[in-house]
Amino acid sequence: MGNNVIITIGREYGSGGFEIGKKLAERLGIAFYDKNLIDEVAKKSGIQIATLHKGDEKAASPWFNPVFKNGTLNDRIFWAQSDVISEIADRESCVIIGRCADYILRDRDNVIKIFIQAPFEDRVERVADKYLIEVPGEAKKEILKIDKQRRSYYEFYTDNTWGGRKHADLIVNSSVLGIDGTVDLLEAFVLRKVNG
Amino acid sequence: MGNNVIITIGREYGSGGFEIGKKLAERLGIAFYDKNLIDEVAKKSGIQIATLHKGDEKAASPWFNPVFKNGTLNDRIFWAQSDVISEIADRESCVIIGRCADYILRDRDNVIKIFIQAPFEDRVERVADKYLIEVPGEAKKEILKIDKQRRSYYEFYTDNTWGGRKHADLIVNSSVLGIDGTVDLLEAFVLRKVNG
Repeated sequence: MGNNVIITIGREYGSGGFEIGKKLAERLGIAFYDKNLIDEVAKKSGIQIATLHKGDEKAASPWFNPVFKNGTLNDRIFWAQSDVISEIADRESCVIIGRCADYILRDRDNVIKIFIQAPFEDRVERVADKYLIEVPGEAKKEILKIDKQRRSYYEFYTDNTWGGRKHADLIVNSSVLGIDGTVDLLEAFVLRKVNG
Repeated sequence: MGNNVIITIGREYGSGGFEIGKKLAERLGIAFYDKNLIDEVAKKSGIQIATLHKGDEKAASPWFNPVFKNGTLNDRIFWAQSDVISEIADRESCVIIGRCADYILRDRDNVIKIFIQAPFEDRVERVADKYLIEVPGEAKKEILKIDKQRRSYYEFYTDNTWGGRKHADLIVNSSVLGIDGTVDLLEAFVLRKVNG
C-alpha cells in the first residue's frame, strides 16, 4: 500500500474479531497490535509488564486504584498506551485491536474504523470450542463479562458508545461470511479506500 | 444468482442509501422496491394510492388517525405493506428500501440486512446539492426531520432500534468509498454470501 493506513478493530468477544484482524494484517503485509502493545507501553511508562497485563482494556475500579498525583494507575496505563498508539500511527501502517484506538486516533484521516460482531449463539459456540469449555452456561457468562469490561473501559475513556455505529466506518456480522470471507471483505474495503 | 435472496437496506437521509440500493439491484439483476411497493399495497388493501403516499414510512399520529375497528389507518397501511413484502420475498430476489422490511422478514435465512450511514456534514451537502437547497440550515432541518420520522416509524412498528447494530449484517459509512465503491462492496458481500 502506498499511504500509511491505520485500521482499528473493535469487537464483541467471541466474534472472531482478533483472528480477522490478525489475518487482515497478514494479507496487507502490515503490523498487528493487540496485547503486544504492552511491551512498548512498558518501555515508555516504566510500569511493569505484569501490571500492564492486569490493567489491559480495563476501566479503573474505584476500589483498587490508588489515586496518584497524576491519576489512577489505570489512567496512567491508558495515557501511556495512548501515546504509544499515536506514535505507532505516525510511524507505520497497522491493524490495532481494541484499546480505544479508534477514539485516540479520531482526528486523523488515514484511519479506518471497523467493528466486528456476531449473533450471541455463534459467539457462545466459538468461545466454547476455542477454550474447550464444557460446562453449560460458562461460555455465556464469560462473554457477558468480557463484553461488559470492554464496554466499561471504552466508555470510561472515550465520549463514544462501545460498538456505536456513528463512529464506525464499517460494522460487520462475521457469521454472514465466516472468518475468511470477512477478511476478504475488509481487505477489499481497505484497498479500495487506499487506492481509490 | 441461484438462490432467492432479499437485501433490506435501511438508511440515514442523505447517505445515498436509495441510490446505492438501486444500483445494487441493477448490478445483481434483481427487483428494486421503494415507493413502488405502494402500487401492490393499493391493490391488496383497497386504500387509495394518494393516501398510501401520505402515510408511507410514517408512524401513526394520534391526532389525525381515526381508529377503525381494525387499527388506525397507518396501522392498516403497515399491515397491508407487511403482507406485500412477505409475498415479494416468497416470490423473487430483490432489494427493499426501508419500510421495516428487515424486521418483517427477520425469521428468514435468505435476508441480508444492510444499513447505510454517512457523517452529518456529508449528508447536508448531498441533500443541498440534490434538491438545490440554497437557504443555509434548510438541508440540516430536513435531514433531522426525516431521520426522526423514519426512526419513529421503525420503532413504532418493530421491537428494534432504528439503525441499531444488533440486527444488522453490515453497516457502512458511504462516505468512505463513495456511492459506486459502496455498491461494489455490497455486491461482493451479497455474492459471497449467496455463492459461498
